[in-house]
Amino acid sequence: MTIQVGIVMGSKSDYPIVERAERILDAFEVGYVTRIISAHRTPAAAETFAKDAEDEGLEVIIAAAGKAAHLAGVLAANTALPVIGLPVKSSTLDGLDSLLSTVQMPKGVPVATVAIDGAENAALLAVQILSVKDVRLREAMRSYKSHMAREIEAADAAFQEEHR
Amino acid sequence: MTIQVGIVMGSKSDYPIVERAERILDAFEVGYVTRIISAHRTPAAAETFAKDAEDEGLEVIIAAAGKAAHLAGVLAANTALPVIGLPVKSSTLDGLDSLLSTVQMPKGVPVATVAIDGAENAALLAVQILSVKDVRLREAMRSYKSHMAREIEAADAAFQEEHR
Amino acid sequence: MTIQVGIVMGSKSDYPIVERAERILDAFEVGYVTRIISAHRTPAAAETFAKDAEDEGLEVIIAAAGKAAHLAGVLAANTALPVIGLPVKSSTLDGLDSLLSTVQMPKGVPVATVAIDGAENAALLAVQILSVKDVRLREAMRSYKSHMAREIEAADAAFQEEHR
Amino acid sequence: MTIQVGIVMGSKSDYPIVERAERILDAFEVGYVTRIISAHRTPAAAETFAKDAEDEGLEVIIAAAGKAAHLAGVLAANTALPVIGLPVKSSTLDGLDSLLSTVQMPKGVPVATVAIDGAENAALLAVQILSVKDVRLREAMRSYKSHMAREIEAADAAFQEEHR
Amino acid sequence: MTIQVGIVMGSKSDYPIVERAERILDAFEVGYVTRIISAHRTPAAAETFAKDAEDEGLEVIIAAAGKAAHLAGVLAANTALPVIGLPVKSSTLDGLDSLLSTVQMPKGVPVATVAIDGAENAALLAVQILSVKDVRLREAMRSYKSHMAREIEAADAAFQEEHR
Amino acid sequence: MTIQVGIVMGSKSDYPIVERAERILDAFEVGYVTRIISAHRTPAAAETFAKDAEDEGLEVIIAAAGKAAHLAGVLAANTALPVIGLPVKSSTLDGLDSLLSTVQMPKGVPVATVAIDGAENAALLAVQILSVKDVRLREAMRSYKSHMAREIEAADAAFQEEHR
Amino acid sequence: MTIQVGIVMGSKSDYPIVERAERILDAFEVGYVTRIISAHRTPAAAETFAKDAEDEGLEVIIAAAGKAAHLAGVLAANTALPVIGLPVKSSTLDGLDSLLSTVQMPKGVPVATVAIDGAENAALLAVQILSVKDVRLREAMRSYKSHMAREIEAADAAFQEEHR
Amino acid sequence: MTIQVGIVMGSKSDYPIVERAERILDAFEVGYVTRIISAHRTPAAAETFAKDAEDEGLEVIIAAAGKAAHLAGVLAANTALPVIGLPVKSSTLDGLDSLLSTVQMPKGVPVATVAIDGAENAALLAVQILSVKDVRLREAMRSYKSHMAREIEAADAAFQEEHR
Repeated sequence: MTIQVGIVMGSKSDYPIVERAERILDAFEVGYVTRIISAHRTPAAAETFAKDAEDEGLEVIIAAAGKAAHLAGVLAANTALPVIGLPVKSSTLDGLDSLLSTVQMPKGVPVATVAIDGAENAALLAVQILSVKDVRLREAMRSYKSHMAREIEAADAAFQEEHR
Repeated sequence: MTIQVGIVMGSKSDYPIVERAERILDAFEVGYVTRIISAHRTPAAAETFAKDAEDEGLEVIIAAAGKAAHLAGVLAANTALPVIGLPVKSSTLDGLDSLLSTVQMPKGVPVATVAIDGAENAALLAVQILSVKDVRLREAMRSYKSHMAREIEAADAAFQEEHR
Repeated sequence: MTIQVGIVMGSKSDYPIVERAERILDAFEVGYVTRIISAHRTPAAAETFAKDAEDEGLEVIIAAAGKAAHLAGVLAANTALPVIGLPVKSSTLDGLDSLLSTVQMPKGVPVATVAIDGAENAALLAVQILSVKDVRLREAMRSYKSHMAREIEAADAAFQEEHR
Repeated sequence: MTIQVGIVMGSKSDYPIVERAERILDAFEVGYVTRIISAHRTPAAAETFAKDAEDEGLEVIIAAAGKAAHLAGVLAANTALPVIGLPVKSSTLDGLDSLLSTVQMPKGVPVATVAIDGAENAALLAVQILSVKDVRLREAMRSYKSHMAREIEAADAAFQEEHR
Repeated sequence: MTIQVGIVMGSKSDYPIVERAERILDAFEVGYVTRIISAHRTPAAAETFAKDAEDEGLEVIIAAAGKAAHLAGVLAANTALPVIGLPVKSSTLDGLDSLLSTVQMPKGVPVATVAIDGAENAALLAVQILSVKDVRLREAMRSYKSHMAREIEAADAAFQEEHR
Repeated sequence: MTIQVGIVMGSKSDYPIVERAERILDAFEVGYVTRIISAHRTPAAAETFAKDAEDEGLEVIIAAAGKAAHLAGVLAANTALPVIGLPVKSSTLDGLDSLLSTVQMPKGVPVATVAIDGAENAALLAVQILSVKDVRLREAMRSYKSHMAREIEAADAAFQEEHR
Repeated sequence: MTIQVGIVMGSKSDYPIVERAERILDAFEVGYVTRIISAHRTPAAAETFAKDAEDEGLEVIIAAAGKAAHLAGVLAANTALPVIGLPVKSSTLDGLDSLLSTVQMPKGVPVATVAIDGAENAALLAVQILSVKDVRLREAMRSYKSHMAREIEAADAAFQEEHR
Repeated sequence: MTIQVGIVMGSKSDYPIVERAERILDAFEVGYVTRIISAHRTPAAAETFAKDAEDEGLEVIIAAAGKAAHLAGVLAANTALPVIGLPVKSSTLDGLDSLLSTVQMPKGVPVATVAIDGAENAALLAVQILSVKDVRLREAMRSYKSHMAREIEAADAAFQEEHR
């Protein structure tokens, strides 16, 4: 399977969140590589990863980080690829620091930010971005949305059953 | 020029912000259509716009809205296309309400959120997404980044000149 | 019992909160229907529910949702009935995102918002709204308030007993 | 015209906001009385107003106040009528204090809260509540929503005209 | 022992916090009465308590409440006595709503607010206020401060012992 | 006139706020001294002021400061007198930093905090505290409250006149 | 080992956080003394500590405190040495009060603030400051950074191993 | 004059703030160089600046940036020198985003953060850090503190003169 998505997490401790993004990409049969790279502790690796991403065939990058979450911004500074920012809730401030550090990027270097701990949505957004050139994924995304709707409808139906 | 980006704003009063996104798309020679559609006041138009977007050839949608900013979410609910959320600062709470209403989407329906009033970045993100299938735009994005870097370098050089 | 109140929750996981609203409506002998409908995952169902609400005899709608809580707003966009928004606390930001997404509605489409996780008050507000045409409920509301006062007075009396 | 809505503001300085609620009620031909009563400076007047509201034929109360905005809560404590809280932005904290003081009511005493400075929506919510027993207002509310939609559509059409 | 301090809590559930204030008053041998009175559920009792407070010999009132914490303000509106507001943390928003609802009082009706859940400080402030006319309490307050300093010094000394 | 209240401001720039406290104390014929003392820039003066306050006949201290507003806390640490904290809004964060730095005092050293920029209330609280031993001030406070009520009532009456 | 760093904590309960700073200083073989001194409960000790710090050979001070965290500011007011502020999360407000009280110092008296509960970083910053005159520490800091990078790289390598 | 301090600002628009830091360094006769370098738009320049800083004789770096302010963190990632973060208030969120993005650094890479827009304090902190090896600057810092104290005392004296 071609690797199209690069997932980067600032610390191994972010993996329980990040893993949920992997499960979505698995379901869509989108190839990905997951790396542990810290914007602050391994800045050279972050730069190299971002600069090489395009040559290595990546089409979109997901960056998961907490606190003063610079990872997505640092990667976005070093690549022309779209970068998705996944703010991770840390032990204080309930994720507000992670969110603001990720989303409030200055003019010129966007980061496509999803909800705090919103790993599934980061992956779904990557799929939607890849769909721009991959009609199969567009179709799969439509199915996913239908499936999701049917799940809610089934939950509603079951609820009506139980509560009447 | 093919229309590839749909820009939707919740109110005409958002246009001074939105116009800055248009200028970026103009510079990248990306076709767009800009519409005034309100998630709350013209929900049917919002639904129709989102449902028809793909058939009309749109590849990505930018939604600009303030306060309880549901526009991006409502559009994302009705299309498989990637939706970029542009939170607009309103008269109270300094844009925090717009940001949280746009970015904190539930599992299954992502909105790619940029900074409060970050219209240029919304457009640049749209360009990055289109670049996935358009090598010309990828190249143009690289040039844009180089140009931006040279501008900062020139500002720095001029500053050194003035201040030494 | 005539169904007068439509309760909608964005996810089954909101039911432990929503159930407390049902208990209040039961106590007031107000008929209700509770549905699981997601503004983002089943937007068509949300629209249909809101549009049909009046014809089906509903007089007021309660919408419970968390995070970027668009449910109340989406329903309010599609009905002339009064819509009560019940912001549900989710796993990050302590409910602030739910509250702001629910209450900060733009001009033209109000949502009558109660406290975060304030399910009982959502139901009591529904009762107060129905009381406008139902003298029995107005009377019941007065009794409820008296009963509540007597409970506090009893708690105070018991406390005085214990602590003197 | 029968007086059905009682509007109370905590200070004359709130009138520029409150006046916008009056204009909506005028448009719907709903009778109202507007009073200046302070929860903290004229508590007896607040209590009297709330206690007499029902006997004087009022069906719904709108309370506008800023800072530690207790007015809506104090009125709600003393009446069985539905009370709409309109948080007014004051000179510090951008209205967050007014919003939280109004909306975060304890179990048993709801306040139907609208957006900070959302005077029009406070009035529209009052109309929606009155519609429960007044078919003319329900119809007028539907017209209002249609009119609002047409305004947005006209703005969109004019925008398309100008920008193509 | 003369009752000089009236402690009011909005709900029995606030007692674990309030009890810590009682322990301080016990230590200073200041008489107090503790009542459960709700600004919203027993507004008449709140008014009566505040209006009678002076005649019953109270010199200062402590009001403990959470969420949209109107209790201190309502009491302050109905008495000329100094009122100390003790914001109690509730299940959402980490006490920020209680704090702002208590401290942000409008011009004319002050509430002497202490930290969220700061029950000991509410009691100590009451003692300091009573000290204005009671030289014994002023002296006791000085002793308390000395004692507190000695405790810290002893903790420091013990720490030095352990860690060298 | 005996000096009973010590007002301390952290900077001359706080005087436009502080002056409003002086006007209240003038109205109540309470003697005061106003000093410019900085907790951070003149810590020795702050300590001396606080330590000497009692001997110089002061009964209560008002401390006005902004940003990381330590002034009230530093004074409270060095005196047994009641200290009123007046958080002053500075150029960023809308006074939230001043408020939290003033009110969130640790156990043992209370600061009686009033609203951000709430200078009048700081003075009124000082008057209420002095009233504990001064029956004239208690009476004056009652008159003030009556006067304030009459002002609101007059504003309401004038408003009724104008708007009918 | 010469004592170069003074660590002060406002309460013994801060030690589990502070201890992590000690471990870093141990690793760098930097001598330190850790004291329990409260800005509010032992202000004289705080003043003495700060004033004597330079004479006792200290080069930098770390102050750890929570809530209205004045400790760093009070020490900085009384010494010309650099003071590092370590805001400690307390039971409410998630550390926001501690952070703002520490970092928002007025012009003239800086406090070098690190992240909430960021004890390791407080110590590392002390090491960086001492490095200005101690080439051995500069070198050790470089090694630390390399070591940290290698740890991340090793975690990444192990992760690749496990997940391929 | 030897250049000891490197000042970096993310954009020329930050200069009105940064200039106030330069004035302080001028007063202390500390040599500095001021550069315009963007963490996101010229990441290579940022990296080069940080990596070369030590070799070029810099002892401390001041980084001024707004919004998702990564500049200080990016520099700190690439140097062993102490880095002072100066969060600059931008057009939304009142500087809270800048502050959290600067101060909430992960373990291992500290940024010595000063107040929002606190340029003078950033410079004074640089001076304090340099004082560790420069006795002349330690002495100058002491004088600065004395001078500052005398200014406050003079302001107080003038105030007493005017207001008695």
